[in-house]
Amino acid sequence: MNKWICSLGEDALIDAIARRHSAPHRRLIKGMGDDASVTVQHGGRALLATTDILIEGVHFKKGSTTPYLLGRKSLSVSLSDIAAMGGSPAFHLVSLAMPPRTPKAFVDGLYEGISGCAGEFGSCLAGGNTARLPERIMISTTVFGEMPMDEVVYRSGARPGDVIYVTGALGASALGLLALKTGRARAMSGPYKDAVLKHLDPAPRLAAGRTLARKRLATAMMDISDGLGIDLKRLCEASRVGAEVEIDRIPVPESLMRHASRQGVSAASFAVAGGEDYELLFTASARNAAAIERVSAGLGLGMTAIGRIVAKGKAHAPVFMDGRGARVKMERLGFEHF
Amino acid sequence: MNKWICSLGEDALIDAIARRHSAPHRRLIKGMGDDASVTVQHGGRALLATTDILIEGVHFKKGSTTPYLLGRKSLSVSLSDIAAMGGSPAFHLVSLAMPPRTPKAFVDGLYEGISGCAGEFGSCLAGGNTARLPERIMISTTVFGEMPMDEVVYRSGARPGDVIYVTGALGASALGLLALKTGRARAMSGPYKDAVLKHLDPAPRLAAGRTLARKRLATAMMDISDGLGIDLKRLCEASRVGAEVEIDRIPVPESLMRHASRQGVSAASFAVAGGEDYELLFTASARNAAAIERVSAGLGLGMTAIGRIVAKGKAHAPVFMDGRGARVKMERLGFEHF
Repeated sequence: MNKWICSLGEDALIDAIARRHSAPHRRLIKGMGDDASVTVQHGGRALLATTDILIEGVHFKKGSTTPYLLGRKSLSVSLSDIAAMGGSPAFHLVSLAMPPRTPKAFVDGLYEGISGCAGEFGSCLAGGNTARLPERIMISTTVFGEMPMDEVVYRSGARPGDVIYVTGALGASALGLLALKTGRARAMSGPYKDAVLKHLDPAPRLAAGRTLARKRLATAMMDISDGLGIDLKRLCEASRVGAEVEIDRIPVPESLMRHASRQGVSAASFAVAGGEDYELLFTASARNAAAIERVSAGLGLGMTAIGRIVAKGKAHAPVFMDGRGARVKMERLGFEHF
Repeated sequence: MNKWICSLGEDALIDAIARRHSAPHRRLIKGMGDDASVTVQHGGRALLATTDILIEGVHFKKGSTTPYLLGRKSLSVSLSDIAAMGGSPAFHLVSLAMPPRTPKAFVDGLYEGISGCAGEFGSCLAGGNTARLPERIMISTTVFGEMPMDEVVYRSGARPGDVIYVTGALGASALGLLALKTGRARAMSGPYKDAVLKHLDPAPRLAAGRTLARKRLATAMMDISDGLGIDLKRLCEASRVGAEVEIDRIPVPESLMRHASRQGVSAASFAVAGGEDYELLFTASARNAAAIERVSAGLGLGMTAIGRIVAKGKAHAPVFMDGRGARVKMERLGFEHF
């Protein structure tokens, strides 16, 4: 029988989540079930904290994903922020607001996804909250990460002459979102299924971020959540520099190349403005190119030089260029939330 | 001119908040404006973390409060959880989801309230997030607190024979909520204005919680957010004990006494089931009665013995009794979220 959350009650719901998903952990003294979670601090180390919100109809459609994949993604987007500082995740809090007639099975699937993702990347559920939201489901995740203080990589460290890199390939998530308009079942078995999975279950680049930070190879780093165009602009603003990007160098997945040539559209526009790829964008001194290549090969994750940091011109917005050095005007730079 | 959030854009909004509300702090290395906040950990100390959600139409009505008071309350409810462990607040994250046509002035007022409250109680804005939510405003706060590990007071420490205490008086918030049905302006200047202010701007009992923890006077502690009845039941469940409460001993404010006698209703039902008082509920050994009286006098905050912890009977639900020891059946024990 399919139970609704309103027939279960809040305490029974939280108990059920705590029993199933609150695993013991050496430094977690108290997880769910008290006024606050209690963990032990590591003296001198950096504590990272980041929070994200996923809202039904805004960030996801229930019919386009599964509760399990949605749970994974809701944690992954915050883990990606920890990766972007160069840290390791430690604990997370999950708040869930939803209509009273939300099936218990939905909440179960969601937390299975969160736990699955947490187990893979080494985070531990430490608490959270539930509330009633009449129209929509909203998931808010807060992740605490850690790392040595002197290894933290900020957005603000890019210097003129630095090379701009991205991990993996860009534009798959936007292509996946487009493919999902044909329906989930069809999209997940169709020609763009890799892109669909990348959209629904992006992998936070924790190993890459941690390695680049530990080896002090990245001068600035962030994750690409809203689009390369808008996110690189943010990095440039924080570093008070400008950027030149060669659009032909931006790595795009094979499925996006196919889609672009079939439909006669620009693959670069997906890669620059698409957003939600959760790849890392970082800058590095040109003399570290060989070291970055070794890290890339060691992790089996592409790290591609796409351009160069330049002195700030009139504005921080990156300049995009074609293979002959001619400036290309991009219509959109990424996703605007309001 | 009244600006809307959608005409401002997300980056400009976050910049404006960061410029005005992100104060420097010795241990806050990076607050807003990067992928995650960065703070320094204190070796061996407990890190407390708690998160709360306030949703328009569910937890508050825009017409019944002001943006400033709403900002204060959204932080206070999480600070109250830190108080309930015996800790001191350190940092907070604020996430805000709202319709695109939310006036910029609303967001400004909200953050002024959050900052005012944070300044009073010693917390520091470390980051957050914004998102679009078409129908309603939602505020999610996460607070980190700290304290010596061996002083943390859990819900689970109550033992048979312990005395049950509450700080302040109960039922004011529920009376204030009732009074607000006549309209905010009228309610805030009417005969129940104290109760209205307690509902709109509850004070987290941080000094009381910290002192009781430091002096090791409380065996178990939590804050009263959903109602004495339901919250004491939670404390009993966590401690695997039962409780007997003398309803005539529950401290209620003078305004609630007046309302009860005028309307011929039971003041105790407000005090037991009302919720949102954000007073502390704690248990203590009977031999510490004089020490607790001294703490109470020193802080100028009432700490009233209302009953006793007993061995667990058939259930953990507290038993309420009148002055002659006869059992009183309470119709409601508190607020159920679903």
